Amino acid sequence: MVNVILIGSGNLAQHLIVAIQNAEKSDNTIRLIQVFARQKESLTHLLDTDKITSDFTKIKEADLYIIAVSDDAITAVSTQLPFKNCLVVHTSGTLNMDALDNKNRKGVFYPLQTFTKNKPVDFKTIPICLETTNNNDHELIEKVGQTISNTIYKIDSQQRKALHVAAVFVNNFTNHLYHIGNEICNKNQIPFTILQPLIQETAQKILNLSPQQVQTGPAIRNDQNTIASQEAFLTNENQKKIYKILTQSIQNNGKKL
Amino acid sequence: MVNVILIGSGNLAQHLIVAIQNAEKSDNTIRLIQVFARQKESLTHLLDTDKITSDFTKIKEADLYIIAVSDDAITAVSTQLPFKNCLVVHTSGTLNMDALDNKNRKGVFYPLQTFTKNKPVDFKTIPICLETTNNNDHELIEKVGQTISNTIYKIDSQQRKALHVAAVFVNNFTNHLYHIGNEICNKNQIPFTILQPLIQETAQKILNLSPQQVQTGPAIRNDQNTIASQEAFLTNENQKKIYKILTQSIQNNGKKL
Repeated sequence: MVNVILIGSGNLAQHLIVAIQNAEKSDNTIRLIQVFARQKESLTHLLDTDKITSDFTKIKEADLYIIAVSDDAITAVSTQLPFKNCLVVHTSGTLNMDALDNKNRKGVFYPLQTFTKNKPVDFKTIPICLETTNNNDHELIEKVGQTISNTIYKIDSQQRKALHVAAVFVNNFTNHLYHIGNEICNKNQIPFTILQPLIQETAQKILNLSPQQVQTGPAIRNDQNTIASQEAFLTNENQKKIYKILTQSIQNNGKKL
Repeated sequence: MVNVILIGSGNLAQHLIVAIQNAEKSDNTIRLIQVFARQKESLTHLLDTDKITSDFTKIKEADLYIIAVSDDAITAVSTQLPFKNCLVVHTSGTLNMDALDNKNRKGVFYPLQTFTKNKPVDFKTIPICLETTNNNDHELIEKVGQTISNTIYKIDSQQRKALHVAAVFVNNFTNHLYHIGNEICNKNQIPFTILQPLIQETAQKILNLSPQQVQTGPAIRNDQNTIASQEAFLTNENQKKIYKILTQSIQNNGKKL
């Protein structure tokens, strides 16, 4: 049995609490014995009050401490922990493992997914990226990871940084392109829902084929008439700039083949 | 019973043939009586040879002629048709209805989806955008559209142009961002599959919420440390340029709220 304490009360922390609680029901491997939250009320919809503390000195002994707070706060929180030589992991995609204070054993437990408040996720499908300084610690957090997810990866700090940048492209930037599509629809009295099947198919296509293999559109066809006509159509300078740069990037990439 | 003749043998033409054949089985509304293809062999895996002609003068009489050829060829094909006053539609997202020759009644029958050769699609889920010059013709192609799809929209040429530009953003450009994510993974020995759940969730999130509502990431949080660190991480100048412009665009958009 691995006793786990979670530190944090935000979006990711809440999703992790639910995932660990689900794992507790079906599995005897882990137990969430306590959660630290600055404001107890933020978690009372998920946990009994006696499992929540807002006092660092009241944090119990455990096998694993998972810090799920914002990147800015991770170092400070890890410094405030009133114990040493325990296993403390953070959950950030951006920060190095070394962001954690030296007094404890360090690790990273990074679930690669986008979390929305009040939107349930199936944690089983979320890849969890693990990093530790030694094999014993790896085995312990791997055990915890496996109770809540089907896919566990060993990813070092440099790889995790790359992964986080890649995630910004495929998630944050992609969502912004959806937003631009929505803006263009609104401006022309077209319901955005009309684009939904295309958006879903675009995402599903690359489950089996590489994005390079399935690239379509005027840029890769080098269809100069359509490109010129679409550029002229866009009156929003920001949209026009993005159109030009992504078209150019697709064409440069095509040429390299 | 609406008798339909399809002109074309490419990707979209083949998907349309399959969709109409499926509709024929379950519905007595439409019948594909002939297909024109310059090279008969390109369609013999889908149709009996006697249903295919490569001779314009042998094209039969029908209620509806659907031209599913590349944009460049639409005008020429519509001019070569050896009859007049019939209903002829094209299937292009880009071209105006007027690209069709004046000797026949004109219309547009544009299925908004990305088609990959040899990858079956469920045509029922594909929105079809219709345009005609009169109500009778609209009713006819609406009837045809409804036999192969669950969602039919009346979209004029200007709206269709907007829709096609929006589709370039949410499909072609999004796929290119997937490709950049793939490149970053490859360079750092990370399997691209690790990003798949994130990509699928990003697409599914906007089924119920607007892209603006679910925008996350360093740009919208104005997390300058992460932005600076990710920009520095990107050594590929093209990727760096795209990173900067999309970050800027997300931030400008956030400010407008």
